[in-house]
Amino acid sequence: MDEFELIARYFSRVGADRPDVALGVGDDAALLRMPADADLAAAVDTIVAGRHFPLDADARSIGHRALAVNLSDLAAMGATPAWATLALTMPNAQADWLERFARGFSDLAYAHGVALVGGDTTAGPLTVSVQVMGHVPRGTALRRDGAHAGDLLVVTGTLGDSGAGLAIATHALSTADATASRELLERFEYPAPRVAFGSAARGLATAAMDLSDGLVGDLPKLAGASGLGARVDVERLPLSRSLQAVARPDQVRDWALAAGDDYELLLAVPPRHLESLTSRAGQLNLRLTVIGELGRGNAVNWMLDGAGFAPTVRGFDHFR
Amino acid sequence: MDEFELIARYFSRVGADRPDVALGVGDDAALLRMPADADLAAAVDTIVAGRHFPLDADARSIGHRALAVNLSDLAAMGATPAWATLALTMPNAQADWLERFARGFSDLAYAHGVALVGGDTTAGPLTVSVQVMGHVPRGTALRRDGAHAGDLLVVTGTLGDSGAGLAIATHALSTADATASRELLERFEYPAPRVAFGSAARGLATAAMDLSDGLVGDLPKLAGASGLGARVDVERLPLSRSLQAVARPDQVRDWALAAGDDYELLLAVPPRHLESLTSRAGQLNLRLTVIGELGRGNAVNWMLDGAGFAPTVRGFDHFR
Repeated sequence: MDEFELIARYFSRVGADRPDVALGVGDDAALLRMPADADLAAAVDTIVAGRHFPLDADARSIGHRALAVNLSDLAAMGATPAWATLALTMPNAQADWLERFARGFSDLAYAHGVALVGGDTTAGPLTVSVQVMGHVPRGTALRRDGAHAGDLLVVTGTLGDSGAGLAIATHALSTADATASRELLERFEYPAPRVAFGSAARGLATAAMDLSDGLVGDLPKLAGASGLGARVDVERLPLSRSLQAVARPDQVRDWALAAGDDYELLLAVPPRHLESLTSRAGQLNLRLTVIGELGRGNAVNWMLDGAGFAPTVRGFDHFR
Repeated sequence: MDEFELIARYFSRVGADRPDVALGVGDDAALLRMPADADLAAAVDTIVAGRHFPLDADARSIGHRALAVNLSDLAAMGATPAWATLALTMPNAQADWLERFARGFSDLAYAHGVALVGGDTTAGPLTVSVQVMGHVPRGTALRRDGAHAGDLLVVTGTLGDSGAGLAIATHALSTADATASRELLERFEYPAPRVAFGSAARGLATAAMDLSDGLVGDLPKLAGASGLGARVDVERLPLSRSLQAVARPDQVRDWALAAGDDYELLLAVPPRHLESLTSRAGQLNLRLTVIGELGRGNAVNWMLDGAGFAPTVRGFDHFR
């Protein structure tokens, strides 16, 4: 099977059919129709075998994650995803691997109404680069630089689960609690980008970003972009029951602070909007937790039970 | 230097400044403003070390080519490029390599008015994936499927130079003709995407594609998309003086037919539009050559001096 047959077989009908795709996979470029009065939102993220996922990871999970990390970027802008392109580099073309990869990618794309509109398949070490494009009503996107002093720091869902899931996937952690193990592994392998909530937060949150590199690495970026400092009460970090069941509190805290790959959203929310935002989250069955607040200055102060706390872990950095 | 410092240092001001970039590099996603009544054109292409360029290639050439192959895709649609994202995977972060890579990318981006609006840098084997976005007045794009029987097959520039340039770069070919050698190497290392001509061909050509994989591999795709067959008169393929100076005619012909990487355009042109199109090409100092025509059926007939000819070479296929 040659490259073109491969692409045709597995990637010609991935994700949703959309009437705004004037021309999809198969020409030199895709032709797409933007709604009026909207900004185009575009993001790109790459995942590499042995770095962002274990070498023996299920291809269905790789396909899911490659798209999920990008949808999470659009969610953090409050944008609605519409189209994706896929640059897939792999050592060789195996039908069963491709079938599972395409299924993982396509199921998530379909769930979010995203069409795959272009791609490029090349031979080489396994590297998956996805770009997503979407739209957001002009001027309403959730940027990182819109926060004000006094805004509350709010996170969705729970933190640290994916870190524990990776530890389980790589056999660095074993547990007798099969239910917790399965839940944590699922959080790593099939993260759920907070797309619907990101849109719902427009007009209520003043800034947002997604937690891909871990709170310790990511929060200073949001605070810095807004020209602010922050205080975080580490004991308030939302932790799942499963996470707390599989490790000691200090390990749990490290994962929640810095393991990354949670793909939850971090938002800056004026206190007067917290109730409305919590209500919208509730309609999506999503938990919101206030973990601190933004203030003047440029330092991030980590507090644990009222005392200063120095995280010993740092955010994910691809060159360390 | 960590990943974020690297990105900030070399990629924060790459390419053109554009007023339609509401938010560029540095947030979760870029925010971009489309013109009214235009289709968004999007393409992605990846180049891999040791496969699409020699392992010891100059980083400036790698940066140029990674963008050029994508701009060529938009040129083939008649679209005007506007924005690009870059997913760069590399084994380690070396300042001098990055500086040259960024320069090659940025110089070409600037020349075409393209802004770099997003990126992702990861550690791993050298792989460069670029996505370009641009726009084209609604309904006017040059697709592959618009050709009619009787349309002439036209190519821009000359064919085969890049194949010879690669042979020189990899020391598979040596020549005493230093001028020819330099010109051919330049064609491989710094291909010029035919962006201005692609736009100029809207309304005159009925179909177009770019020659990235070689005429033997690419022409059947255009003919097939339009539901047609084709006849090519191989002796009419446009050959540069430099190419003819460095190799025997049969080798020259093989390069022109199938070496790929030319990034010239192949167009279907109704005979009544040939004169206008040639005039527009002349204004851009670009040579146009009629190499055959499209007709009914589904076969591509290669003719050499009036007799049937079977190319012994095939288009570039990443999995053979």
